[in-house]
Amino acid sequence: AAGADVVLLAVPVAATGAVLGEIRPVLGAHTLCMDVGSTKLDVVAAARASLGDRLAAFVPAHPIAGGERAGVEHSDAGLFKRRQVILTPLEQNPPALRHRARELWQAVGATVLEMEAAAHDDAFAAVSHLPHLLAYAYFEAVAAQPDAADLLALAGPGFRDFTRIAAGEPTMWRDILLANRERVLRHGQQLRASLERLEALLREGDADALHERLRAVSRQRSAWRMRGTSD
Amino acid sequence: AAGADVVLLAVPVAATGAVLGEIRPVLGAHTLCMDVGSTKLDVVAAARASLGDRLAAFVPAHPIAGGERAGVEHSDAGLFKRRQVILTPLEQNPPALRHRARELWQAVGATVLEMEAAAHDDAFAAVSHLPHLLAYAYFEAVAAQPDAADLLALAGPGFRDFTRIAAGEPTMWRDILLANRERVLRHGQQLRASLERLEALLREGDADALHERLRAVSRQRSAWRMRGTSD
Repeated sequence: AAGADVVLLAVPVAATGAVLGEIRPVLGAHTLCMDVGSTKLDVVAAARASLGDRLAAFVPAHPIAGGERAGVEHSDAGLFKRRQVILTPLEQNPPALRHRARELWQAVGATVLEMEAAAHDDAFAAVSHLPHLLAYAYFEAVAAQPDAADLLALAGPGFRDFTRIAAGEPTMWRDILLANRERVLRHGQQLRASLERLEALLREGDADALHERLRAVSRQRSAWRMRGTSD
Repeated sequence: AAGADVVLLAVPVAATGAVLGEIRPVLGAHTLCMDVGSTKLDVVAAARASLGDRLAAFVPAHPIAGGERAGVEHSDAGLFKRRQVILTPLEQNPPALRHRARELWQAVGATVLEMEAAAHDDAFAAVSHLPHLLAYAYFEAVAAQPDAADLLALAGPGFRDFTRIAAGEPTMWRDILLANRERVLRHGQQLRASLERLEALLREGDADALHERLRAVSRQRSAWRMRGTSD
Protein backbone atom coordinates (compact mmCIF):
# COMPACT_ATOMS: atom_id res chain seq x y z
CA ALA A 1 0.00 0.00 0.00
CA ALA A 2 3.03 2.32 0.06
CA GLY A 3 2.22 5.40 -2.01
CA ALA A 4 -1.47 4.53 -2.16
CA ASP A 5 -3.80 7.50 -2.56
CA VAL A 6 -6.59 6.00 -0.51
CA VAL A 7 -6.56 3.36 2.19
CA LEU A 8 -10.00 2.08 3.18
CA LEU A 9 -9.96 -0.09 6.30
CA ALA A 10 -12.74 -2.62 6.52
CA VAL A 11 -12.00 -4.43 9.78
CA PRO A 12 -13.99 -5.05 12.98
CA VAL A 13 -13.97 -1.80 14.98
CA ALA A 14 -11.96 -3.36 17.84
CA ALA A 15 -9.14 -4.16 15.39
CA THR A 16 -8.90 -0.62 13.99
CA GLY A 17 -6.14 0.55 16.35
CA ALA A 18 -3.84 -2.39 15.67
CA VAL A 19 -4.31 -2.17 11.90
CA LEU A 20 -3.76 1.61 11.86
CA GLY A 21 -0.52 1.07 13.81
CA GLU A 22 0.61 -1.45 11.18
CA ILE A 23 -0.09 0.78 8.20
CA ARG A 24 1.12 4.04 9.75
CA PRO A 25 4.59 3.80 8.17
CA VAL A 26 3.14 3.54 4.67
CA LEU A 27 0.73 6.48 4.98
CA GLY A 28 2.20 9.08 2.59
CA ALA A 29 1.81 12.82 2.81
CA HIS A 30 -1.17 12.77 0.45
CA THR A 31 -2.80 9.53 1.54
CA LEU A 32 -6.43 9.57 2.59
CA CYS A 33 -7.21 6.83 5.11
CA MET A 34 -10.77 5.97 6.12
CA ASP A 35 -12.48 3.21 8.07
CA VAL A 36 -16.00 1.88 7.60
CA GLY A 37 -16.79 1.17 11.24
CA SER A 38 -20.26 1.42 12.76
CA THR A 39 -18.99 3.22 15.88
CA LYS A 40 -16.85 6.33 15.74
CA LEU A 41 -15.75 7.43 19.26
CA ASP A 42 -13.72 4.25 19.79
CA VAL A 43 -12.29 4.40 16.26
CA VAL A 44 -11.25 8.03 16.76
CA ALA A 45 -9.61 7.14 20.10
CA ALA A 46 -7.78 4.24 18.44
CA ALA A 47 -6.61 6.48 15.60
CA ARG A 48 -5.33 9.12 18.03
CA ALA A 49 -3.42 6.43 19.92
CA SER A 50 -1.99 4.68 16.84
CA LEU A 51 -1.34 7.26 14.14
CA GLY A 52 0.76 9.89 15.90
CA ASP A 53 1.91 12.53 13.41
CA ARG A 54 -0.10 10.82 10.62
CA LEU A 55 -3.45 11.37 12.39
CA ALA A 56 -4.34 14.12 9.89
CA ALA A 57 -4.61 11.48 7.14
CA PHE A 58 -7.47 9.68 8.85
CA VAL A 59 -11.08 10.63 8.15
CA PRO A 60 -13.48 8.40 10.16
CA ALA A 61 -16.33 7.12 7.97
CA HIS A 62 -19.46 5.02 8.40
CA PRO A 63 -21.20 3.90 5.23
CA ILE A 64 -24.77 2.87 6.08
CA ALA A 65 -25.17 -0.04 3.74
CA GLY A 66 -27.27 -3.09 4.44
CA GLY A 67 -26.20 -6.63 3.88
CA GLU A 68 -25.82 -8.70 7.02
CA ARG A 69 -23.44 -11.13 5.33
CA ALA A 70 -19.73 -10.73 5.89
CA GLY A 71 -16.96 -11.46 3.45
CA VAL A 72 -15.65 -10.44 0.08
CA GLU A 73 -17.79 -13.09 -1.62
CA HIS A 74 -20.86 -11.01 -0.72
CA SER A 75 -19.44 -7.76 -2.04
CA ASP A 76 -21.70 -5.74 -4.27
CA ALA A 77 -20.62 -2.91 -6.56
CA GLY A 78 -23.94 -1.10 -6.12
CA LEU A 79 -23.92 -1.40 -2.31
CA PHE A 80 -23.50 2.33 -1.65
CA LYS A 81 -25.76 3.62 -4.36
CA ARG A 82 -28.31 6.00 -2.84
CA ARG A 83 -27.07 5.14 0.66
CA GLN A 84 -25.74 7.56 3.27
CA VAL A 85 -22.16 7.77 4.45
CA ILE A 86 -21.46 9.58 7.71
CA LEU A 87 -18.07 11.27 8.11
CA THR A 88 -16.90 12.42 11.55
CA PRO A 89 -13.81 14.45 10.53
CA LEU A 90 -11.03 15.30 12.97
CA GLU A 91 -9.91 18.87 13.59
CA GLN A 92 -6.51 17.68 12.28
CA ASN A 93 -7.91 16.79 8.83
CA PRO A 94 -6.90 19.37 6.19
CA PRO A 95 -9.97 20.78 4.37
CA ALA A 96 -8.69 19.39 1.04
CA LEU A 97 -8.59 15.86 2.50
CA ARG A 98 -12.13 16.15 3.90
CA HIS A 99 -13.21 17.28 0.47
CA ARG A 100 -11.55 14.26 -1.18
CA ALA A 101 -13.24 11.97 1.31
CA ARG A 102 -16.65 13.40 0.42
CA GLU A 103 -15.99 13.18 -3.30
CA LEU A 104 -14.85 9.58 -3.09
CA TRP A 105 -18.10 8.42 -1.47
CA GLN A 106 -20.22 10.57 -3.76
CA ALA A 107 -18.47 8.95 -6.73
CA VAL A 108 -19.90 5.54 -5.72
CA GLY A 109 -23.38 7.03 -5.44
CA ALA A 110 -23.59 7.75 -1.71
CA THR A 111 -24.96 10.84 0.05
CA VAL A 112 -22.41 12.24 2.51
CA LEU A 113 -23.24 13.74 5.89
CA GLU A 114 -20.80 15.15 8.46
CA MET A 115 -21.43 14.74 12.20
CA GLU A 116 -19.64 14.81 15.54
CA ALA A 117 -18.46 11.34 16.56
CA ALA A 118 -20.45 11.40 19.82
CA ALA A 119 -23.68 12.42 18.06
CA HIS A 120 -23.06 9.66 15.51
CA ASP A 121 -22.63 7.00 18.18
CA ASP A 122 -25.73 8.10 20.05
CA ALA A 123 -27.89 8.11 16.91
CA PHE A 124 -26.69 4.70 15.75
CA ALA A 125 -27.12 3.20 19.20
CA ALA A 126 -30.80 4.11 18.75
CA VAL A 127 -31.45 3.26 15.09
CA SER A 128 -29.02 0.39 14.49
CA HIS A 129 -27.21 -1.12 17.47
CA LEU A 130 -30.24 -1.51 19.73
CA PRO A 131 -32.37 -3.16 17.00
CA HIS A 132 -29.53 -5.61 16.41
CA LEU A 133 -29.41 -6.45 20.12
CA LEU A 134 -33.19 -6.86 20.18
CA ALA A 135 -33.21 -9.08 17.10
CA TYR A 136 -30.47 -11.28 18.61
CA ALA A 137 -32.34 -11.49 21.93
CA TYR A 138 -35.68 -12.22 20.29
CA PHE A 139 -34.35 -14.91 17.96
CA GLU A 140 -32.42 -16.48 20.85
CA ALA A 141 -35.59 -16.61 22.96
CA VAL A 142 -37.54 -18.36 20.20
CA ALA A 143 -34.71 -20.76 19.42
CA ALA A 144 -34.48 -21.70 23.13
CA GLN A 145 -38.11 -22.90 23.26
CA PRO A 146 -38.56 -26.69 23.54
CA ASP A 147 -40.62 -26.66 20.31
CA ALA A 148 -38.31 -24.24 18.49
CA ALA A 149 -38.19 -26.30 15.30
CA ASP A 150 -41.99 -26.25 15.00
CA LEU A 151 -42.13 -22.52 15.76
CA LEU A 152 -39.45 -21.67 13.21
CA ALA A 153 -41.23 -23.75 10.57
CA LEU A 154 -44.38 -21.63 11.03
CA ALA A 155 -42.72 -18.23 10.93
CA GLY A 156 -43.63 -15.97 8.02
CA PRO A 157 -42.47 -12.83 6.23
CA GLY A 158 -42.85 -10.55 9.28
CA PHE A 159 -40.53 -12.80 11.30
CA ARG A 160 -38.11 -13.04 8.39
CA ASP A 161 -37.72 -9.26 8.11
CA PHE A 162 -37.76 -8.61 11.86
CA THR A 163 -34.94 -11.11 12.48
CA ARG A 164 -32.83 -10.54 9.38
CA ILE A 165 -30.27 -8.51 11.32
CA ALA A 166 -29.86 -11.35 13.86
CA ALA A 167 -27.78 -13.03 11.14
CA GLY A 168 -25.27 -10.18 11.54
CA GLU A 169 -21.62 -11.19 11.68
CA PRO A 170 -20.99 -11.98 15.39
CA THR A 171 -17.43 -10.64 15.73
CA MET A 172 -18.40 -7.34 14.15
CA TRP A 173 -21.51 -6.97 16.29
CA ARG A 174 -19.78 -8.02 19.51
CA ASP A 175 -17.29 -5.19 18.92
CA ILE A 176 -19.94 -2.61 18.01
CA LEU A 177 -22.17 -3.45 20.97
CA LEU A 178 -19.27 -3.40 23.42
CA ALA A 179 -17.77 -0.20 22.02
CA ASN A 180 -21.11 1.60 22.23
CA ARG A 181 -22.62 -0.24 25.18
CA GLU A 182 -23.46 2.76 27.38
CA ARG A 183 -25.56 4.36 24.66
CA VAL A 184 -27.10 1.05 23.59
CA LEU A 185 -28.11 0.27 27.18
CA ARG A 186 -29.54 3.76 27.60
CA HIS A 187 -31.70 3.49 24.48
CA GLY A 188 -32.61 -0.02 25.66
CA GLN A 189 -34.20 1.58 28.74
CA GLN A 190 -36.40 3.75 26.50
CA LEU A 191 -37.50 0.70 24.56
CA ARG A 192 -38.25 -1.19 27.74
CA ALA A 193 -40.40 1.65 29.06
CA SER A 194 -42.37 1.75 25.82
CA LEU A 195 -42.79 -2.05 25.81
CA GLU A 196 -43.93 -2.07 29.44
CA ARG A 197 -46.59 0.56 28.77
CA LEU A 198 -47.94 -1.44 25.84
CA GLU A 199 -47.89 -4.66 27.88
CA ALA A 200 -49.78 -2.89 30.68
CA LEU A 201 -52.50 -1.88 28.19
CA LEU A 202 -52.73 -5.52 27.08
CA ARG A 203 -53.02 -6.74 30.67
CA GLU A 204 -55.69 -4.14 31.44
CA GLY A 205 -57.50 -4.92 28.18
CA ASP A 206 -57.56 -1.19 27.38
CA ALA A 207 -58.55 -1.50 23.72
CA ASP A 208 -58.98 2.23 23.09
CA ALA A 209 -55.63 3.33 24.50
CA LEU A 210 -53.88 0.42 22.76
CA HIS A 211 -55.53 1.31 19.46
CA GLU A 212 -54.52 4.95 19.82
CA ARG A 213 -50.87 4.08 20.36
CA LEU A 214 -50.65 1.44 17.65
CA ARG A 215 -52.32 3.87 15.26
CA ALA A 216 -49.82 6.64 15.97
CA VAL A 217 -46.87 4.28 15.44
CA SER A 218 -48.34 2.67 12.33
CA ARG A 219 -48.96 6.09 10.80
CA GLN A 220 -45.43 7.32 11.53
CA ARG A 221 -43.79 4.12 10.30
CA SER A 222 -45.91 4.09 7.13
CA ALA A 223 -44.82 7.65 6.37
CA TRP A 224 -41.11 6.95 7.04
CA ARG A 225 -38.79 6.41 4.10
CA MET A 226 -35.12 5.51 4.22
CA ARG A 227 -33.30 8.64 3.11
CA GLY A 228 -32.49 8.69 -0.58
CA THR A 229 -34.81 5.77 -1.40
CA SER A 230 -38.45 4.94 -1.86
CA ASP A 231 -38.11 1.88 0.42
CA ALA B 1 -74.01 -14.59 -0.71
CA ALA B 2 -77.08 -16.86 -0.54
CA GLY B 3 -76.22 -20.16 -2.18
CA ALA B 4 -72.52 -19.31 -2.30
CA ASP B 5 -70.17 -22.31 -2.25
CA VAL B 6 -67.47 -20.57 -0.31
CA VAL B 7 -67.60 -17.63 2.09
CA LEU B 8 -64.21 -16.23 3.05
CA LEU B 9 -64.36 -13.73 5.92
CA ALA B 10 -61.60 -11.18 5.96
CA VAL B 11 -62.46 -9.01 8.95
CA PRO B 12 -60.58 -8.03 12.13
CA VAL B 13 -60.71 -11.02 14.51
CA ALA B 14 -62.82 -9.16 17.07
CA ALA B 15 -65.56 -8.64 14.43
CA THR B 16 -65.74 -12.31 13.43
CA GLY B 17 -68.60 -13.22 15.79
CA ALA B 18 -70.85 -10.37 14.68
CA VAL B 19 -70.24 -11.03 10.98
CA LEU B 20 -70.78 -14.78 11.37
CA GLY B 21 -74.09 -14.02 13.12
CA GLU B 22 -75.12 -11.84 10.17
CA ILE B 23 -74.29 -14.39 7.51
CA ARG B 24 -75.56 -17.46 9.36
CA PRO B 25 -78.98 -17.42 7.62
CA VAL B 26 -77.37 -17.59 4.17
CA LEU B 27 -74.99 -20.47 4.92
CA GLY B 28 -76.36 -23.33 2.82
CA ALA B 29 -75.97 -27.04 3.49
CA HIS B 30 -72.91 -27.22 1.25
CA THR B 31 -71.34 -23.86 2.02
CA LEU B 32 -67.76 -23.76 3.20
CA CYS B 33 -67.08 -20.75 5.41
CA MET B 34 -63.56 -19.74 6.45
CA ASP B 35 -61.93 -16.80 8.14
CA VAL B 36 -58.38 -15.51 7.67
CA GLY B 37 -57.74 -14.39 11.25
CA SER B 38 -54.33 -14.46 12.93
CA THR B 39 -55.76 -15.87 16.17
CA LYS B 40 -57.88 -19.00 16.32
CA LEU B 41 -59.13 -19.71 19.87
CA ASP B 42 -61.16 -16.48 19.94
CA VAL B 43 -62.46 -17.03 16.41
CA VAL B 44 -63.53 -20.59 17.28
CA ALA B 45 -65.29 -19.31 20.41
CA ALA B 46 -67.06 -16.63 18.37
CA ALA B 47 -68.10 -19.19 15.76
CA ARG B 48 -69.49 -21.53 18.42
CA ALA B 49 -71.49 -18.65 19.92
CA SER B 50 -72.77 -17.27 16.61
CA LEU B 51 -73.30 -20.14 14.19
CA GLY B 52 -75.49 -22.57 16.18
CA ASP B 53 -76.50 -25.48 13.96
CA ARG B 54 -74.41 -24.10 11.08
CA LEU B 55 -71.14 -24.42 13.01
CA ALA B 56 -70.15 -27.44 10.90
CA ALA B 57 -69.77 -25.15 7.86
CA PHE B 58 -66.97 -23.13 9.47
CA VAL B 59 -63.33 -24.15 9.02
CA PRO B 60 -61.02 -21.71 10.86
CA ALA B 61 -58.09 -20.68 8.66
CA HIS B 62 -54.99 -18.53 8.96
CA PRO B 63 -53.09 -17.78 5.75
CA ILE B 64 -49.56 -16.66 6.65
CA ALA B 65 -49.06 -14.03 4.02
CA GLY B 66 -46.98 -10.93 4.41
CA GLY B 67 -48.03 -7.46 3.45
CA GLU B 68 -48.50 -5.05 6.31
CA ARG B 69 -50.77 -2.84 4.23
CA ALA B 70 -54.50 -3.15 4.69
CA GLY B 71 -57.18 -2.70 2.11
CA VAL B 72 -58.33 -4.09 -1.20
CA GLU B 73 -56.09 -1.63 -3.07
CA HIS B 74 -53.09 -3.63 -1.86
CA SER B 75 -54.49 -7.00 -2.88
CA ASP B 76 -52.15 -9.28 -4.78
CA ALA B 77 -53.16 -12.37 -6.74
CA GLY B 78 -49.87 -14.11 -5.97
CA LEU B 79 -50.07 -13.39 -2.23
CA PHE B 80 -50.52 -17.02 -1.16
CA LYS B 81 -48.14 -18.62 -3.60
CA ARG B 82 -45.65 -20.79 -1.69
CA ARG B 83 -47.05 -19.52 1.61
CA GLN B 84 -48.47 -21.62 4.43
CA VAL B 85 -52.11 -21.72 5.47
CA ILE B 86 -52.93 -23.14 8.90
CA LEU B 87 -56.36 -24.77 9.34
CA THR B 88 -57.68 -25.52 12.84
CA PRO B 89 -60.71 -27.66 11.94
CA LEU B 90 -63.60 -28.22 14.35
CA GLU B 91 -64.74 -31.71 15.34
CA GLN B 92 -68.08 -30.71 13.77
CA ASN B 93 -66.54 -30.21 10.28
CA PRO B 94 -67.46 -33.07 7.92
CA PRO B 95 -64.31 -34.68 6.40
CA ALA B 96 -65.44 -33.69 2.89
CA LEU B 97 -65.60 -30.02 3.93
CA ARG B 98 -62.13 -30.13 5.49
CA HIS B 99 -60.90 -31.66 2.27
CA ARG B 100 -62.49 -28.86 0.21
CA ALA B 101 -60.89 -26.27 2.48
CA ARG B 102 -57.45 -27.78 1.91
CA GLU B 103 -57.97 -28.01 -1.84
CA LEU B 104 -59.08 -24.42 -2.09
CA TRP B 105 -55.91 -23.05 -0.50
CA GLN B 106 -53.72 -25.46 -2.43
CA ALA B 107 -55.33 -24.20 -5.64
CA VAL B 108 -53.93 -20.69 -4.97
CA GLY B 109 -50.47 -22.12 -4.37
CA ALA B 110 -50.42 -22.41 -0.57
CA THR B 111 -49.13 -25.27 1.58
CA VAL B 112 -51.79 -26.37 4.07
CA LEU B 113 -51.10 -27.47 7.65
CA GLU B 114 -53.66 -28.57 10.26
CA MET B 115 -53.17 -27.72 13.94
CA GLU B 116 -55.09 -27.43 17.20
CA ALA B 117 -56.33 -23.87 17.76
CA ALA B 118 -54.46 -23.56 21.09
CA ALA B 119 -51.16 -24.75 19.58
CA HIS B 120 -51.68 -22.32 16.72
CA ASP B 121 -52.21 -19.38 19.04
CA ASP B 122 -49.20 -20.24 21.16
CA ALA B 123 -46.91 -20.60 18.15
CA PHE B 124 -48.06 -17.35 16.55
CA ALA B 125 -47.75 -15.45 19.81
CA ALA B 126 -44.05 -16.41 19.63
CA VAL B 127 -43.26 -15.97 15.93
CA SER B 128 -45.65 -13.20 14.90
CA HIS B 129 -47.58 -11.37 17.61
CA LEU B 130 -44.65 -10.71 19.96
CA PRO B 131 -42.41 -9.38 17.14
CA HIS B 132 -45.20 -7.01 16.15
CA LEU B 133 -45.50 -5.76 19.74
CA LEU B 134 -41.71 -5.34 19.91
CA ALA B 135 -41.56 -3.49 16.62
CA TYR B 136 -44.34 -1.13 17.73
CA ALA B 137 -42.62 -0.55 21.09
CA TYR B 138 -39.20 -0.01 19.52
CA PHE B 139 -40.43 2.41 16.85
CA GLU B 140 -42.48 4.28 19.45
CA ALA B 141 -39.41 4.66 21.68
CA VAL B 142 -37.34 6.09 18.81
CA ALA B 143 -40.13 8.39 17.65
CA ALA B 144 -40.50 9.73 21.21
CA GLN B 145 -36.88 10.95 21.36
CA PRO B 146 -36.44 14.75 21.23
CA ASP B 147 -34.23 14.36 18.12
CA ALA B 148 -36.47 11.74 16.49
CA ALA B 149 -36.46 13.43 13.08
CA ASP B 150 -32.65 13.35 12.94
CA LEU B 151 -32.56 9.74 14.13
CA LEU B 152 -35.13 8.59 11.59
CA ALA B 153 -33.22 10.38 8.80
CA LEU B 154 -30.10 8.33 9.63
CA ALA B 155 -31.78 4.93 9.85
CA GLY B 156 -30.75 2.37 7.25
CA PRO B 157 -31.83 -0.97 5.80
CA GLY B 158 -31.58 -2.88 9.10
CA PHE B 159 -33.99 -0.43 10.74
CA ARG B 160 -36.27 -0.54 7.71
CA ASP B 161 -36.66 -4.32 7.84
CA PHE B 162 -36.80 -4.54 11.65
CA THR B 163 -39.61 -1.99 11.86
CA ARG B 164 -41.59 -2.93 8.74
CA ILE B 165 -44.23 -4.72 10.82
CA ALA B 166 -44.74 -1.61 12.99
CA ALA B 167 -46.70 -0.26 10.01
CA GLY B 168 -49.23 -3.06 10.63
CA GLU B 169 -52.89 -2.05 10.51
CA PRO B 170 -53.67 -0.84 14.06
CA THR B 171 -57.24 -2.13 14.40
CA MET B 172 -56.23 -5.59 13.23
CA TRP B 173 -53.21 -5.69 15.54
CA ARG B 174 -55.08 -4.30 18.54
CA ASP B 175 -57.55 -7.19 18.18
CA ILE B 176 -54.87 -9.84 17.68
CA LEU B 177 -52.76 -8.67 20.61
CA LEU B 178 -55.76 -8.45 22.94
CA ALA B 179 -57.21 -11.80 21.84
CA ASN B 180 -53.90 -13.57 22.41
CA ARG B 181 -52.52 -11.39 25.18
CA GLU B 182 -51.76 -14.11 27.75
CA ARG B 183 -49.56 -16.00 25.33
CA VAL B 184 -47.97 -12.83 23.94
CA LEU B 185 -47.10 -11.65 27.46
CA ARG B 186 -45.70 -15.07 28.34
CA HIS B 187 -43.42 -15.14 25.30
CA GLY B 188 -42.54 -11.52 26.10
CA GLN B 189 -41.09 -12.76 29.41
CA GLN B 190 -38.80 -15.16 27.53
CA LEU B 191 -37.62 -12.34 25.30
CA ARG B 192 -36.99 -10.10 28.29
CA ALA B 193 -34.90 -12.79 30.01
CA SER B 194 -32.81 -13.24 26.88
CA LEU B 195 -32.37 -9.47 26.46
CA GLU B 196 -31.39 -9.02 30.10
CA ARG B 197 -28.71 -11.71 29.84
CA LEU B 198 -27.23 -10.05 26.77
CA GLU B 199 -27.36 -6.63 28.43
CA ALA B 200 -25.58 -8.06 31.49
CA LEU B 201 -22.77 -9.33 29.25
CA LEU B 202 -22.47 -5.85 27.74
CA ARG B 203 -22.34 -4.23 31.18
CA GLU B 204 -19.70 -6.72 32.36
CA GLY B 205 -17.77 -6.31 29.11
CA ASP B 206 -17.68 -10.09 28.74
CA ALA B 207 -16.53 -10.20 25.11
CA ASP B 208 -16.08 -13.98 24.91
CA ALA B 209 -19.48 -14.92 26.30
CA LEU B 210 -21.15 -12.24 24.18
CA HIS B 211 -19.38 -13.48 21.06
CA GLU B 212 -20.39 -17.07 21.79
CA ARG B 213 -24.06 -16.15 22.08
CA LEU B 214 -24.17 -13.83 19.07
CA ARG B 215 -22.40 -16.51 17.04
CA ALA B 216 -24.94 -19.19 17.97
CA VAL B 217 -27.86 -16.91 17.05
CA SER B 218 -26.25 -15.68 13.84
CA ARG B 219 -25.57 -19.24 12.73
CA GLN B 220 -29.15 -20.38 13.45
CA ARG B 221 -30.72 -17.35 11.80
CA SER B 222 -28.47 -17.65 8.74
CA ALA B 223 -29.53 -21.29 8.34
CA TRP B 224 -33.26 -20.53 8.77
CA ARG B 225 -35.46 -20.33 5.70
CA MET B 226 -39.11 -19.44 5.54
CA ARG B 227 -40.90 -22.68 4.73
CA GLY B 228 -41.55 -23.16 1.06
CA THR B 229 -39.20 -20.36 -0.01
CA SER B 230 -35.52 -19.60 -0.41
CA ASP B 231 -35.94 -16.30 1.48
